[in-house]
Amino acid sequence: MQDALLALTRYWTDRGCMIVQPFNTEVGAGTLNPATILRVLGPEPWRVAYVEPSVRPDDSRYGENPNRLQTHTQFQVILKPDPGDPQEQYLASLEALGIDIHAHDIRFVEDNWANPATGSWGLGWEVWLDGLEITQFTYFQQAGGMSLDPVSVEITYGVERIIMALQGVSHFKDIQYAPGISYGEAFGQAEYEMSRFYLDDADVDTQRRLFEDYAAEARRLLDARLPVPAHVHVLKCSHTFNVLDARGAVSTTERARAFARMRALAREVSALWAQRREELGHPLGLTPALSAAAPAESLPEVSAAAPLLFEIGTEELPPGEVTRSARAVREALTAKLAGTRLEHGAVEVHATPRRIVVVVEEVAPREPDAERFVRGPRVSAAFDADGNPTKAAAGFARGQGVEVSALERVEVDGVEHVGVTRTDAGRGAVEVLAEVLGSLVAELRADKNMRWNDPKLSFTRPVRWLVALLGSEVVPVVASSLAAGRTTRVHRTAESPVVEVPSASGYLDFLASHGIVASPSARRATIVSAATALAESVGGRIDVEGEAALLDEITNLVEEPNAILGGFAPSYLDLPQEILTTVMRKHQRYVPVRDAEGNLLPHFVAVANGSCAADAVRAGNEAVLRARYEDASFFWRADLQVAPEAMKSGLARLAFEERLGSMADRAARIAAVAGNLGSALSSADRATLDRAAVLAKFDLGSQMVIELTSLAGVMAREYAVRAGETPEVAQALFDMERPRSAGDAAPATVPGAVLALADRFDMLVGLFAVGAAPTGSSDPFGLRRAASGVITILRAHPSLREITFERGLAAAAQHVRAQGIEVAEATLAEAAEFITRRQEQQLLDAGHDHRHVAAVLALPPATAAETLAEIESRQGNEEFAALAAALQRVRRIVPADTAPSYDTARLTEPAEVALHQALVKVADSLGAGPHSLAHFADVASALTEPINTFFDEILVMAEDPEVRAARLGLLATIRDLAAPTLDWQALGTQ
Amino acid sequence: MQDALLALTRYWTDRGCMIVQPFNTEVGAGTLNPATILRVLGPEPWRVAYVEPSVRPDDSRYGENPNRLQTHTQFQVILKPDPGDPQEQYLASLEALGIDIHAHDIRFVEDNWANPATGSWGLGWEVWLDGLEITQFTYFQQAGGMSLDPVSVEITYGVERIIMALQGVSHFKDIQYAPGISYGEAFGQAEYEMSRFYLDDADVDTQRRLFEDYAAEARRLLDARLPVPAHVHVLKCSHTFNVLDARGAVSTTERARAFARMRALAREVSALWAQRREELGHPLGLTPALSAAAPAESLPEVSAAAPLLFEIGTEELPPGEVTRSARAVREALTAKLAGTRLEHGAVEVHATPRRIVVVVEEVAPREPDAERFVRGPRVSAAFDADGNPTKAAAGFARGQGVEVSALERVEVDGVEHVGVTRTDAGRGAVEVLAEVLGSLVAELRADKNMRWNDPKLSFTRPVRWLVALLGSEVVPVVASSLAAGRTTRVHRTAESPVVEVPSASGYLDFLASHGIVASPSARRATIVSAATALAESVGGRIDVEGEAALLDEITNLVEEPNAILGGFAPSYLDLPQEILTTVMRKHQRYVPVRDAEGNLLPHFVAVANGSCAADAVRAGNEAVLRARYEDASFFWRADLQVAPEAMKSGLARLAFEERLGSMADRAARIAAVAGNLGSALSSADRATLDRAAVLAKFDLGSQMVIELTSLAGVMAREYAVRAGETPEVAQALFDMERPRSAGDAAPATVPGAVLALADRFDMLVGLFAVGAAPTGSSDPFGLRRAASGVITILRAHPSLREITFERGLAAAAQHVRAQGIEVAEATLAEAAEFITRRQEQQLLDAGHDHRHVAAVLALPPATAAETLAEIESRQGNEEFAALAAALQRVRRIVPADTAPSYDTARLTEPAEVALHQALVKVADSLGAGPHSLAHFADVASALTEPINTFFDEILVMAEDPEVRAARLGLLATIRDLAAPTLDWQALGTQ
Repeated sequence: MQDALLALTRYWTDRGCMIVQPFNTEVGAGTLNPATILRVLGPEPWRVAYVEPSVRPDDSRYGENPNRLQTHTQFQVILKPDPGDPQEQYLASLEALGIDIHAHDIRFVEDNWANPATGSWGLGWEVWLDGLEITQFTYFQQAGGMSLDPVSVEITYGVERIIMALQGVSHFKDIQYAPGISYGEAFGQAEYEMSRFYLDDADVDTQRRLFEDYAAEARRLLDARLPVPAHVHVLKCSHTFNVLDARGAVSTTERARAFARMRALAREVSALWAQRREELGHPLGLTPALSAAAPAESLPEVSAAAPLLFEIGTEELPPGEVTRSARAVREALTAKLAGTRLEHGAVEVHATPRRIVVVVEEVAPREPDAERFVRGPRVSAAFDADGNPTKAAAGFARGQGVEVSALERVEVDGVEHVGVTRTDAGRGAVEVLAEVLGSLVAELRADKNMRWNDPKLSFTRPVRWLVALLGSEVVPVVASSLAAGRTTRVHRTAESPVVEVPSASGYLDFLASHGIVASPSARRATIVSAATALAESVGGRIDVEGEAALLDEITNLVEEPNAILGGFAPSYLDLPQEILTTVMRKHQRYVPVRDAEGNLLPHFVAVANGSCAADAVRAGNEAVLRARYEDASFFWRADLQVAPEAMKSGLARLAFEERLGSMADRAARIAAVAGNLGSALSSADRATLDRAAVLAKFDLGSQMVIELTSLAGVMAREYAVRAGETPEVAQALFDMERPRSAGDAAPATVPGAVLALADRFDMLVGLFAVGAAPTGSSDPFGLRRAASGVITILRAHPSLREITFERGLAAAAQHVRAQGIEVAEATLAEAAEFITRRQEQQLLDAGHDHRHVAAVLALPPATAAETLAEIESRQGNEEFAALAAALQRVRRIVPADTAPSYDTARLTEPAEVALHQALVKVADSLGAGPHSLAHFADVASALTEPINTFFDEILVMAEDPEVRAARLGLLATIRDLAAPTLDWQALGTQ
Repeated sequence: MQDALLALTRYWTDRGCMIVQPFNTEVGAGTLNPATILRVLGPEPWRVAYVEPSVRPDDSRYGENPNRLQTHTQFQVILKPDPGDPQEQYLASLEALGIDIHAHDIRFVEDNWANPATGSWGLGWEVWLDGLEITQFTYFQQAGGMSLDPVSVEITYGVERIIMALQGVSHFKDIQYAPGISYGEAFGQAEYEMSRFYLDDADVDTQRRLFEDYAAEARRLLDARLPVPAHVHVLKCSHTFNVLDARGAVSTTERARAFARMRALAREVSALWAQRREELGHPLGLTPALSAAAPAESLPEVSAAAPLLFEIGTEELPPGEVTRSARAVREALTAKLAGTRLEHGAVEVHATPRRIVVVVEEVAPREPDAERFVRGPRVSAAFDADGNPTKAAAGFARGQGVEVSALERVEVDGVEHVGVTRTDAGRGAVEVLAEVLGSLVAELRADKNMRWNDPKLSFTRPVRWLVALLGSEVVPVVASSLAAGRTTRVHRTAESPVVEVPSASGYLDFLASHGIVASPSARRATIVSAATALAESVGGRIDVEGEAALLDEITNLVEEPNAILGGFAPSYLDLPQEILTTVMRKHQRYVPVRDAEGNLLPHFVAVANGSCAADAVRAGNEAVLRARYEDASFFWRADLQVAPEAMKSGLARLAFEERLGSMADRAARIAAVAGNLGSALSSADRATLDRAAVLAKFDLGSQMVIELTSLAGVMAREYAVRAGETPEVAQALFDMERPRSAGDAAPATVPGAVLALADRFDMLVGLFAVGAAPTGSSDPFGLRRAASGVITILRAHPSLREITFERGLAAAAQHVRAQGIEVAEATLAEAAEFITRRQEQQLLDAGHDHRHVAAVLALPPATAAETLAEIESRQGNEEFAALAAALQRVRRIVPADTAPSYDTARLTEPAEVALHQALVKVADSLGAGPHSLAHFADVASALTEPINTFFDEILVMAEDPEVRAARLGLLATIRDLAAPTLDWQALGTQ
């Protein structure tokens, strides 16, 4: 291993990097070494490489886990500015390490890095070696809250993992560290003991005190304008925080606060560093900007219609962006071409992680010429009374370069003008395309964009090359520093990774000949059939429908799918399947293999990119999965030793929020609120609710959830069942965490839904009361998600319609107040409004018409959803439109304070009597409310005609006040009958 | 520079070292990395190399000083066990770095390393490159309080210094760190800012709190049996302590306490680590012990007298040990040879740092045979009445292998025995010498001894080879793993560093032909004459007498003196000469060059070892001195900005001891005690004392003294004079710190002596009162030194004879009590006894007879010294012996409670009358006491004869009680007259 470090050191020094030493206070990653985090700031160039033993207290495993260490070794490289080919340089460094990049499956898998503690982020990848993450590769975009210009490339090698793969050992302890000494022999004892310290023995009070001391010292040093020692203290803060976290002593809200504090300090450090460097006159000089590519001097002409090929070559796009970019490019290009007169055939766009390929059939060689009339003065001003041209006419003609006699006459808006008809010559296709495609690239944008060495372009990942061919002619597209040519890049590990494209024709076949399947649908089909065949080879199958999202993602991760069947020890099947599949899908993008009943088999399908040595790649992927499952097993076994109640007792040690107390306090409040909200439950549901409330959130005290927070609830269900709780209680505990995110399912059971509501109402009231409501884009506690959750849950559970926002918030307020915290009524109103606004946003985001949304917004979410659906189903229904119009008419004329009662004796005119009779009948048919819109509309349509007749024939504002009152009272009664169903006024014209 | 680090890394990995990373918490030295401090413990082998950026807050200089950095780079190597040739491996590593070891003066200069914070020590050297310390080279003997077996070799390169020398730059900032980037560009800003933090901005309260937190955490982790995280926290303690120290917030006593605490923790860490490794079964295996050399199978015979050469080849001996070892070897060998019958000529011993050369002329080829008589039974038992041999005689004869008839008769103690005369055959010289010389080596010991790879030998530095030749014959001496031969080693940089010695004859010439001057006197003469000539070349001279100790030291630092004249900028002469000469002598072993008046000239003489490129060596030495002077100038300039009173106000921030308050409190107490003790001073002295008392210890607040504590007092004098104080006051401030150590001069002036006494009495009383008296070998506050100081001062100032220990302690107690601290009378008595015991020890150490010491111990030190001298001058003087015997006789007979008075009328016998008359006359001549012994003995000798006659003729215990009382009263009067002079009884027989 030490030879590997030396080899990397040598490799990067040969490429102009200086070497510095690991930092001498604990850092969680090489990034935090000032040689990265400060040096990436500002305009000075910087190339550095160093080893960084990185301390992650959370990864402590007593040295038992084969892949996780509390201190692992990073090799860190910073290239500032981006050299233009950092991926290629990186791959060559792997070869310098002795890795056969042709035999292994090496992939760049989207991984956007962010370090909230320092206000830093970047876009890039994890690099996978046979499924094993061996390197983090990032284009650093922001550090310490400052945008970086130039952008730095950060390459962080996970040295132990690389060496394990190289040496073919399956536990880090077995790495041969140096001749005659293993990693375990050299570092095993420290690994065990430091794990003990971080997991079991660090004194929480001491660490909290240290955190405060470090933070205060950082603050003072910033005031003294000393960014370097201030940074050292921010690092110490950060490490101390990590220790507390590993000890399980940090709650979600504490985490948010600590991060906010560290981020603020880090931002100041960065700003101060940048400022100090400027004051020092940027001692290392300024980074020169890449110059723009020269535009072509001459544009070739094409004589006949020809296909266009335009390829935008990128570094690995995020899977989601592959699809989205293809669509965006098609739309943009179609629109742009439509803005020209160039004729063309179908626009076809394909995409892989590394390229967006546009093929346009039959592009005309030129635009046709076009005529247009240039308007001059009015005829009356162009000629004098004698019919002679005036000066105005002469001037116009001169300006247009024609004789006055050549002026034509045209009538414009009924007034005759002189003018000239001009011919716009059509441009050559090359010229048109160069312009269109150039602007297409310049305007490329994704969901999340980044900068690289190009001075102007911005996209989700760097654009590195352009191929633009019209037939076999290069279209000289220029986009900032890039100029298109006929050179494309195929697999990086190909014998000739750079190839010349002879012609636009048959480009997909050309790519296929280089092993690249440009069509996403073709790739997906290949993956599905190969995975299915592999699964069948072990008697299993792939759930193509259930795994659709995963298959889509995989499709966008490779240019040439190469499915490989792997296996794992059947003993892991004892773990809950959610754990196994979560790991497979989310972490590894492996397709689970199931038997006919849908149960997992101990197999998986990994999809490599391109050809490789299948056995090596399989073994690698299996080792990775084994390590991950080993990790999960560790937690699982440890957690099963602890009864739910005992686990829950640990919540007292997890602070939630300073004033709101511990997580145990919060769980107690949730239980109390749920008891209140669940008053109308059936006795069976009630019993389930009561027991589940006692255990609420107990799994937050489990190691599994501390490690894999997304399994909160999932683990509660598993552990509860195993501890002898009823399936209903277990399910309620599972349900109470749902929905986890936008789009996640709501609780399936009523007791679970009540708990989930109690959870969210408590969070909203508590945090609003202590002044932690979201502001601007900052929502550290996830209150927007909590509010959305309330809506999702209530929508899914019409039986809980009685639980209005107001009632839920009031119930929560009672228990927050019991903790001695003031909760003003205005605060509750604000929280209710906050939830309502989330509901509005949700419905709008779902594409509903804003008028429809407004019409249902006051309704309980379940009703609102039904009503909205009904409104939409009745779109274009004339009867409904007429009813709505009639009801709106009623509402418009009746003052708001008019009471819904009237003296029938005063109604004498036939139309008013008819309306009264119709109303009585309708009210009768409707029965007791609330009414669904469907029912109401069906019944109330009987009112449409009488209302309209009434308005046609009756003067509401009669002179006789008693008559007037009766008429208004009649209308008010109709209004109030209709009002609970929806806000008819908001509906507008249907 | 980074290439140099890679070169070293490569060099040592090629020699089987593993590479680890720098430690990730601040360490002051690579030694503290667990890869050293823990791994050197126990029996497991370990070879490691690593870079360690070492943080020394105290060395912060804002990046201004050319040689000092708060973080400097160490390259650390641990070889466990000692490979036998670590110096040679080290020198080769310098060559790997590109250093021409032939051109430069590379020396191993004694430097015994100790880290009190961790209870660790070792013996070894600083390696000098042209006077620049570039490496610490240590045989690690103890770590964390545990003896090391096997011993590790620790090599610590000071990388910046080496690189500066290699690149020929004079400021670390100018080092080319990597291609295109200087050290200053890479690290300058951090250097400045961290200096600011350590010197000016670190928050003292926070750091104190951190210290406590870390120490408590270390404690807890030890209790949890986790040595590694415990060690991490000891390191954090240590760094925090260093930060406090750099901030000037640590007093001497605080330092002592903190060190004691850290040492205790470190010891526990080490013990626990060793224990844990044992529990783990020593995973890296056990180090095999070196096997003993095989004894010779046959011993050569020598036919004629021949010279003996015996060379003990060592690694560089400490200068003091060169002389001492030569003497010890001569004495031991002479004694051992005297224990044989081997005849030999003069035993001559020469020594250099690398060899002790014994030459014995004319060693006989064999011991002569010797006869001895073996005694048998008495004659009376050997023969029966008939004169026939008995069984006893027969048995004896048989046992001796002779016939009964061959028995001889010899009278033993007046009784006739039979017996046999046997001849002991003389052994060959080679056999005798092999045994003698082998035991000589085995028994070699120095003041401070160490172990290396040899399993049994122990000496001040490793013994690496033996040459033993009798004439040209090898004497097969064996000492543990070493076997003598004819191979010696000359200069390590010689073309052939290992040479064969043909014969013992002319060995000194043989060595001289290899450039080695074995005779110390010849080396010293060479040095003196060369240095003198060089000094004269610039119009100066060398103070041969004044620099005798330095010249002696230099003589023992080289095997071949090569004096080189260097210079420094005359501007440094503005600094006080003590600073300049202290640096030259103590730090660099340069001989100062002075003008005829004794003023310094801007030159020095450095003495290199052997031939080298003089210009390079000169330039190197000059650069080193410049850097050291630059450092001193920095402090000097800074301190001169501060008035003494202002400087003194800083003492309030220096804690002395928790209960005894700050250093300012202590200075105030000293002033008050001095005022009391100085009551009898002349008015001029009194005025000086009063002013000096106001300023007492003000220079402890100066940067110079904080950095160079040995200049306390020296700087007070300099700064006081420059601040306008009188020369007397300045001198008193200088004097009050003397004596600094055993052997240092006492204060020259009376006011200074009074202050110095007050200082020490305060320290003794205060610390005894708070229970910090020394115990066992622990004396963290240096109270033994303080007590010895009291004695030295009082001895030097007879005019202060009135200041007894009791009075001084009582005066100090008054002011300690004023601070609210109880001081029991018993405590004062204990302190007085403590001082008395120091006096006793001092006198015994000085070689005085224990009886003489006992006789004077009750006297004030000045008197004691005079009396002791007088006793010794009268040794062998019969008159004095007779007086003493007479007085002892008097004392023996008189009961202790007898009053010194008598009724003369009762004395009637001539002898008693004569004694009475003699006594009256003697008392008269003596006059008023106290009397010096000289005076007393001269006068009182007149009593000797009358006393003796009295005892001969008079029965003291007369029957008549009145007569008896008179006689006893007479004797008691004599006793009491003699008693104040000394304790005659203790004197014993003269």
